[in-house]
Amino acid sequence: MFLTVTLNAALDITYRVPRLRAHSTHRVQEVDERPGGKGVNVARVLAALGKDVTVTGFAGGATGAALRNLLAADQRERPNHARLTDAFVPISGTTRRTVAVVDASSGDTTQLNEPGPAISPAEWQAFTTAYAGLLPRTTAVALCGSLPPGVPVGAYAELVRAARAADVPVLLDTSGEALRRGIAARPDLVKPNGDELAQLTGVTVPLRAARDARRRGAAAVVASLGAEGLLAATADGAWRAAPPQTIAGNPTGAGDSAVAGLLSGLADGLDWPARLSRAVALSAATVAAPAAGEFDPSTYAAVLDRVEVAPQPHAA
Amino acid sequence: MFLTVTLNAALDITYRVPRLRAHSTHRVQEVDERPGGKGVNVARVLAALGKDVTVTGFAGGATGAALRNLLAADQRERPNHARLTDAFVPISGTTRRTVAVVDASSGDTTQLNEPGPAISPAEWQAFTTAYAGLLPRTTAVALCGSLPPGVPVGAYAELVRAARAADVPVLLDTSGEALRRGIAARPDLVKPNGDELAQLTGVTVPLRAARDARRRGAAAVVASLGAEGLLAATADGAWRAAPPQTIAGNPTGAGDSAVAGLLSGLADGLDWPARLSRAVALSAATVAAPAAGEFDPSTYAAVLDRVEVAPQPHAA
Repeated sequence: MFLTVTLNAALDITYRVPRLRAHSTHRVQEVDERPGGKGVNVARVLAALGKDVTVTGFAGGATGAALRNLLAADQRERPNHARLTDAFVPISGTTRRTVAVVDASSGDTTQLNEPGPAISPAEWQAFTTAYAGLLPRTTAVALCGSLPPGVPVGAYAELVRAARAADVPVLLDTSGEALRRGIAARPDLVKPNGDELAQLTGVTVPLRAARDARRRGAAAVVASLGAEGLLAATADGAWRAAPPQTIAGNPTGAGDSAVAGLLSGLADGLDWPARLSRAVALSAATVAAPAAGEFDPSTYAAVLDRVEVAPQPHAA
Repeated sequence: MFLTVTLNAALDITYRVPRLRAHSTHRVQEVDERPGGKGVNVARVLAALGKDVTVTGFAGGATGAALRNLLAADQRERPNHARLTDAFVPISGTTRRTVAVVDASSGDTTQLNEPGPAISPAEWQAFTTAYAGLLPRTTAVALCGSLPPGVPVGAYAELVRAARAADVPVLLDTSGEALRRGIAARPDLVKPNGDELAQLTGVTVPLRAARDARRRGAAAVVASLGAEGLLAATADGAWRAAPPQTIAGNPTGAGDSAVAGLLSGLADGLDWPARLSRAVALSAATVAAPAAGEFDPSTYAAVLDRVEVAPQPHAA
């Protein structure tokens, strides 16, 4: 099975309003609630691809219960998906919400993200024990998203080392100091976006920055560059992979779908160009889907064999 | 005991952000959750004034459970308040949230109100039965706020008639068609704000509009006019009541505190000028309180005997 870790999971709420005007009162027309957090998104795409997956991290309070109920309901409603197993570790705090306010007049989104619950040392200890117990059955693990308050900033470094000790391929998708510390523990793959990569390395040219990030400890770096697709720097070479045309839609969750593509491609033994094609096609299919974070299977099928993968020059 | 009805109760969430910018992403600095809905606010003020009160209406889902837990926690934490009894009727739907986003740079608030759960005919029937069972023990009842989807638009008219049949004084605080229908059932008191009164009557001069609203069926009309205080039109005369000076602060809940003042003053046998003074002082103390919807006891005490109550001319 695959394993995704979401330490700061969320209940994602979307409000649709006719027009958002700061400092006034709005009647919300539509309310949507989904299980959220990057690792949860990755797991849902893996399950849709037919991969059994376990989600772990922290969940607590009324919003944590709502998140878990939505995951279970999703499983019941999608019998053709692979099994998604809930292995969240309970906490005394309350899982955060994110609120996305969609302005129907422009399609623009205003995002409000709660900080997340405080995690106690005992809860962090309970998590690392549960994680160690899951690793022996794990094909590959993705460590995703921000750290909630109370989790040590070196948390991802610890989780990367545990995966490597158990011989489980490990992908890290986070930012800031958590990425800086985590990458030093030598994960198999990191997937920053362009801003995160520049912040990590201080280098603004993506290919140079990706190579710099490899030197910091990642065996491979795949940077997600929005509409320009993916840029990979690996031991086997470097590639750019882009969709055949710009895809219109909502980019929320496109990076998480790329992670699912990379992780499943690794486990399926695909070479780098095929892994990158899968990741780009899943990202495009997520942008094209009407609901944020879903992916559109027909776009996936249509884009998959038309992704343009271009080798990049060897490092100077 | 007093009874307040909140058919569209809410979990009120407040987010504080450094500066709200439409179409960008915000990390929320502070999250506050409170039991919400106008009748719930009225009940909390009545309990703080030493009046036993029962809250009813509909509650359901994770947010309904959170609302009820917060009400219970509030009772435990405030042993000097009178008893607040939870008599919400459970529903299969989920209690709505309201989200207030406070911009710390300006103090301005952007409000997002969910529409509320759909109420089934069986749930409405269960409510009217529960309400009828509570009336014989009720000193006075306040019917407050909007109607959730599925509740008949004539709901308040039905609840007003039931209260009158049980000889229980009834106050109605709502707007639009629910107010128009409810007022025709002859409540003892309606408390619109200036806009609601103008919308009901088509008359923009408040005193004329209040008298027009009496002709539509209300035995008395008290309009809340923001910083200008209250305007009352009753069988015993008409008055304006205003605080001695403008009170700075957050007006959220000021109208609900006025309702609590009017209801408790009626039950205590106060004459109209004394009732209006109490209502104005409670409103001012609510505006002055640091947390929205709370009231500041020292402001209440300081303002109470300095409210200016001026008789208004007889109708032409």
